[in-house]
Amino acid sequence: MSAAPGLARTPVPPYYAVIFTSKRATDDGHAYGAVAQRMVDLGSRYDGFLGIESARGTDGIGLTVSYWRDEAAILAWKRDTEHEKAQRGGREAWYEAYEVRVARVERAYGFARGGAA
Amino acid sequence: MSAAPGLARTPVPPYYAVIFTSKRATDDGHAYGAVAQRMVDLGSRYDGFLGIESARGTDGIGLTVSYWRDEAAILAWKRDTEHEKAQRGGREAWYEAYEVRVARVERAYGFARGGAA
Repeated sequence: MSAAPGLARTPVPPYYAVIFTSKRATDDGHAYGAVAQRMVDLGSRYDGFLGIESARGTDGIGLTVSYWRDEAAILAWKRDTEHEKAQRGGREAWYEAYEVRVARVERAYGFARGGAA
Repeated sequence: MSAAPGLARTPVPPYYAVIFTSKRATDDGHAYGAVAQRMVDLGSRYDGFLGIESARGTDGIGLTVSYWRDEAAILAWKRDTEHEKAQRGGREAWYEAYEVRVARVERAYGFARGGAA
């Protein structure tokens, strides 16, 4: 797997991916950035967390994909008290819309300049 | 499913996701944008294509997730002649590194302000 900054170093499949696609609200009036970073820090300490990749474009569309060992790890993190509070903040203020898709990664391959993939 | 612009309107699972995470090369010297848009236009005409979501941040990390009916549709698009040429361009010039993960979406849920999700 690749070691490029920003690309997750995940194990050989199978494992799980949570694909979180969101559209930011135009006027969210809250400390979104700090909470988003806190959720990355907190979630990555959960047992079964494998990695995370994230990007948001200038059009307000963001994709965050987190990788997990299994469904049980995903559910444990979803039910984290602080995470549940952040999810409510997302619905009440930060997002115009979002979609969560839970998927089982079946195969993977990569490329890195210099042959590190 | 949500109808917000930028979020894919996908059917009830199961279906497949191709998670493409990339790090742009700092000096790619080619018409990346035009080819990338052409690949979206071309791929979305393939049988079994369900939708696409994409974001790239200022750090050069991009995530594009395309959704497909089944693995056969993914493989047909991967082997498209023009797409194969673009894949070579990606390795030779446009990307520092990338990772492709093929995953089976097992469940999905969403939110949209106003209750459209």
